[in-house]
Amino acid sequence: MSDAISRICDEREIEALLIEYCCALDRMDLDTISKLFTDDCVVEFGPDKRLNSRGRSQVAKSLERMWRWVRTSHHLSNVKIRFIEEDHANSISYVIAWHERANETTATIYGQYHDELRRESNGWRIMKRVMYMNGCDTGFTVNIHPFERQSAPEGWVAPSID
Amino acid sequence: MSDAISRICDEREIEALLIEYCCALDRMDLDTISKLFTDDCVVEFGPDKRLNSRGRSQVAKSLERMWRWVRTSHHLSNVKIRFIEEDHANSISYVIAWHERANETTATIYGQYHDELRRESNGWRIMKRVMYMNGCDTGFTVNIHPFERQSAPEGWVAPSID
Amino acid sequence: MSDAISRICDEREIEALLIEYCCALDRMDLDTISKLFTDDCVVEFGPDKRLNSRGRSQVAKSLERMWRWVRTSHHLSNVKIRFIEEDHANSISYVIAWHERANETTATIYGQYHDELRRESNGWRIMKRVMYMNGCDTGFTVNIHPFERQSAPEGWVAPSID
Repeated sequence: MSDAISRICDEREIEALLIEYCCALDRMDLDTISKLFTDDCVVEFGPDKRLNSRGRSQVAKSLERMWRWVRTSHHLSNVKIRFIEEDHANSISYVIAWHERANETTATIYGQYHDELRRESNGWRIMKRVMYMNGCDTGFTVNIHPFERQSAPEGWVAPSID
Repeated sequence: MSDAISRICDEREIEALLIEYCCALDRMDLDTISKLFTDDCVVEFGPDKRLNSRGRSQVAKSLERMWRWVRTSHHLSNVKIRFIEEDHANSISYVIAWHERANETTATIYGQYHDELRRESNGWRIMKRVMYMNGCDTGFTVNIHPFERQSAPEGWVAPSID
Repeated sequence: MSDAISRICDEREIEALLIEYCCALDRMDLDTISKLFTDDCVVEFGPDKRLNSRGRSQVAKSLERMWRWVRTSHHLSNVKIRFIEEDHANSISYVIAWHERANETTATIYGQYHDELRRESNGWRIMKRVMYMNGCDTGFTVNIHPFERQSAPEGWVAPSID
């Protein structure tokens, strides 16, 4: 198989892995979730240590907190993959994560997953995940890492277009 | 063409088919919609029989109901494809479907399409589609099949993280 | 490299270009934005001439207006690419663009980018972009080109399904 094709296949496998995380989380299929990570993985949703975990079992255990929502929907997009070595890659992907509480109020996040991935004997796995948040609606109150954008230059004045 | 490449091409054609459904629906181009399905297709949006149809013409006819919205926007993501045979596949994909009424109220669904696909002489077609809903906002009242997730184990207590 | 593979690689590069626009905009990395367009590009967000620009520097300059939001999130999907010649293509893609003001009010667009792309010596670039809007929430007031869908046939009566 040519280098170009095997690279495309790797990218597709990594994208499938990132998608499966979203789908498995919406099914609350935590057994599957645990299999998407390496045994020594590090996952960090925010500065609060209760939002961080190490190792695939603890990651899955930690995500039991998602049961405090009655329904969720995680929509992945904007997947960018960069290979460091043949079996080692970084990726950034975007997610729209919708959550509903038992009282029917909702919370939506517009987030980013910044991942480090490693090929193991049975396929690509997430070895490090840090989540950032571009933003969220007022219903969401968990302290996810804010994604920082560049600031306006000093003296910038907003144009009147709306 | 190698097996790996032809498999990638098939996946891309199937993804393009699923995307075209979304785009054609937002254009209300029902002629195009009818061409995306097999002649013997079965489409089921919910338990109400008025939401179900058989055959490409009836599917397109049935979707005339979308004119009760003045604007819609269907955003596909999370496409997973599994081949059963060379010319036969299953797929699951996610959609954010936004709808606006003439009175400017809106309704948004966070849904899943569970599809069965068949390669015909002029390309891949949808032969069975069942729609499920992870959730929706309060503006949406049509009875789409609910997507069921696994329940919390007995005795599970919500952590205090927000 | 076979024609099929080089076509797939081209499509992946174009999709990466469209994704990078979204990500760079959310970072307000306008240097990167300017590099995604051709030197003679034409970009048109709406009928108001203040929403239009020519040339990569002016496009980046014009997007300084995005600093009137404190946070944004652009989620790309539904990418369709059609090649006109080997080095020239059209694409349509969808975007959910979420914006937040300093006062915490938000504005969300459900839009489409209609692009013309050209391969230059260092890769694919956007040579023409016209943005259309399927819809938006009430928080968004900029006059983006409306995307027009086909109208209901005369005498069409809405079914009672919700």
